Amino acid sequence: MTESVLDYMTRLGRAARQASRVIGRASTAQKNRALQAAADALDAARAELTAANELDLAAGRGNGLEPALLDRLALTPARIDGMITGLRQVASLPDPVGAIRDMSYRPSGIQVGKMRAPLGVIGIIYESRPNVTIDAASLCLKSGNATILRGGSEAIHSNRAIATCIQRGLAEAGLPAAVVQVVETTDREAVGALISMPEFVDVIVPRGGRGLIERISRDARVPVIKHLDGICHVYVSEHADLDKAWRVAFNAKTYRYGICGAMETLLVDQRVAERFLPEMARRFQEKGVELRGCERTRAFIDAKPASEDDWHTEYLDAILSIRVVDDLDQAIEHINHYGSHHTDSIITEHQGQARQFMAEVDSASVMLNTPTCFADGFEYGLGAEIGISTDKLHARGPVGLEGLTCEKYVVIGDGQLRGQESC
Amino acid sequence: MTESVLDYMTRLGRAARQASRVIGRASTAQKNRALQAAADALDAARAELTAANELDLAAGRGNGLEPALLDRLALTPARIDGMITGLRQVASLPDPVGAIRDMSYRPSGIQVGKMRAPLGVIGIIYESRPNVTIDAASLCLKSGNATILRGGSEAIHSNRAIATCIQRGLAEAGLPAAVVQVVETTDREAVGALISMPEFVDVIVPRGGRGLIERISRDARVPVIKHLDGICHVYVSEHADLDKAWRVAFNAKTYRYGICGAMETLLVDQRVAERFLPEMARRFQEKGVELRGCERTRAFIDAKPASEDDWHTEYLDAILSIRVVDDLDQAIEHINHYGSHHTDSIITEHQGQARQFMAEVDSASVMLNTPTCFADGFEYGLGAEIGISTDKLHARGPVGLEGLTCEKYVVIGDGQLRGQESC
Repeated sequence: MTESVLDYMTRLGRAARQASRVIGRASTAQKNRALQAAADALDAARAELTAANELDLAAGRGNGLEPALLDRLALTPARIDGMITGLRQVASLPDPVGAIRDMSYRPSGIQVGKMRAPLGVIGIIYESRPNVTIDAASLCLKSGNATILRGGSEAIHSNRAIATCIQRGLAEAGLPAAVVQVVETTDREAVGALISMPEFVDVIVPRGGRGLIERISRDARVPVIKHLDGICHVYVSEHADLDKAWRVAFNAKTYRYGICGAMETLLVDQRVAERFLPEMARRFQEKGVELRGCERTRAFIDAKPASEDDWHTEYLDAILSIRVVDDLDQAIEHINHYGSHHTDSIITEHQGQARQFMAEVDSASVMLNTPTCFADGFEYGLGAEIGISTDKLHARGPVGLEGLTCEKYVVIGDGQLRGQESC
Repeated sequence: MTESVLDYMTRLGRAARQASRVIGRASTAQKNRALQAAADALDAARAELTAANELDLAAGRGNGLEPALLDRLALTPARIDGMITGLRQVASLPDPVGAIRDMSYRPSGIQVGKMRAPLGVIGIIYESRPNVTIDAASLCLKSGNATILRGGSEAIHSNRAIATCIQRGLAEAGLPAAVVQVVETTDREAVGALISMPEFVDVIVPRGGRGLIERISRDARVPVIKHLDGICHVYVSEHADLDKAWRVAFNAKTYRYGICGAMETLLVDQRVAERFLPEMARRFQEKGVELRGCERTRAFIDAKPASEDDWHTEYLDAILSIRVVDDLDQAIEHINHYGSHHTDSIITEHQGQARQFMAEVDSASVMLNTPTCFADGFEYGLGAEIGISTDKLHARGPVGLEGLTCEKYVVIGDGQLRGQESC
């Protein structure tokens, strides 16, 4: 008799909950040992990994997978190096668990503070890139959480081979195998089960296209840390250093078109538009970026007319919308209304403007004289990131180890009583 | 033509979103002025408040409302005093908005840190106590958020009268009226609308019975900060100072039976049960607390047999379940399994036991030699609380001003480019 998908997932969930108690109290040294041993195991298993990946690639080719997806799926030697380096980097990060802050005495005589603690069990649902298996597993492990990983069915052999290496690392450090579990079935029902077990799973992190994330957010009965659009803006104020503005705006768009931190809309103050726009347009056009502008923009440069839709669109491509705005207030209004609360930057040398922009723009990252493409866990010093959250609650922006933990109150007394009611 | 409930709520939501931009950038002084002026307005409007409350009380009596509910509903002079004091206390709390932490240079030359920011618009759904209107409005205002308050229909006149006083305070400080809005309709559809407008509402805080909170959590399309059960434990270890243990456990149960931090289950180490239990039982029985014990407990004291259900039950009453456990590990296992992750305390003088308990018990508050009834925003020094969260994500435990804010990344550069791609 075979096990149903629901029974199987319940079994994984129960094992993860138990393992979370063990990894939650593991020492930093023990967790680092597991990460280093997993890195060693990956290094020793290059042939295994390549062979497993070849099975996925062959199946992908057979199923007519697009070249871009096949490329994401491939575990090249450089990508295996990247996974090994990633594991060693996470091992070198400070352990967030157990840190206590703001411990102070209250008038009653009790001491109250906050202690950082693991969340418990984290479910990760992702698409084709098998290296996400390492990123997610290592960050969850270091932050004291158990993980259930559900990768794309097209990467199942690669993910299993990677998981085997992680298991070797866990075993080496004397940690239970259930600290990191890979869902072995490709049945889609497994996802439905994973997001509906609040008794076993504390949070779900979906990584992938907007469709996947919306579906999971809608159906989940467990909290979700999610990333939706990245409609990022750069606003060039009348007090901008224009040379800086040209370079920063160009970098924000062209560093990589496909990342969520890429600038999608450029806002230009009317008082500087005539001096700023022609040279900016020249640089973008030379690079092959299609420009779509409002009417005032089109008075200064050659651009297609931008429609209302353009202000709402994340192109992730060599297309840029440009709007001339009256002033800083209108720029902030535009960003808060049309943006996705991801990352927005002001180019100005004016202190008061910078202060206002950073206070009033309601985004996960607010920047000054910095290209929006810097929105990234590595660039921010998190060491690694499990994703970039566009939620406001819990974790906002790039999510690293701290975002995979919570804080509990610690209260230390010595027999103090409330209301001094003695018996 | 009358406005539909949905149109009405959309109008409130849109106004709240706009007002949130204003209150979000208001200075600390301006917010404090509004709070102090609202306190003055309440003080001047005692007659109005009492008259409005009398309408609610009369209607309540007419509808056969239970005496306990009528009592909650009553705005006595002492409760009006309490609201005034509460407003002035919130005015005196430090403003969390704009605080920047961990600002540091990255190798690329950018500076990265985190800035505390308001959440935006907070919806509060609560039952009969009209003083919640003041608690919620004042905390949201101080933390830079706009609020939409939906109180119980039985308190509608009282809530309106209180809201009028808050409006006077807002006007005095030059802040828009829509910073604090009270839903004027008692139509239940209004709640459905409020929890389904993510474009206008950033978070919902329900306050009331378990039924209300479960319904809202299930149906909400907006994140919810919620409080479910408070099944709190005290564990008396074999290294406890017994005199402390008797006093702390007694206080934890009897300070007030009806609060969520009241102890519901007492766990006693087997090595100390014989010395500890008889005197403990004597004190509880003298106070009229019904005891339900496991078999090993009943070997030492007179108690009804406890069933499996008892370990899962929040009595909120003069009833206590008692279990004798083998050791600390079994106590932790019991708490993590049967508890509600709210507040749990260990009584011990042994440092290693204290450390293990506080690290491994997966609760919002973990305590040492302290009665669980101390779980409270005022006792913790938050100044006030909007509720106690039993969620792990975002805010855990008593939620004060900090829990009504989030952190955004601030990034300050001076023209640094990513990947040093210059144009």
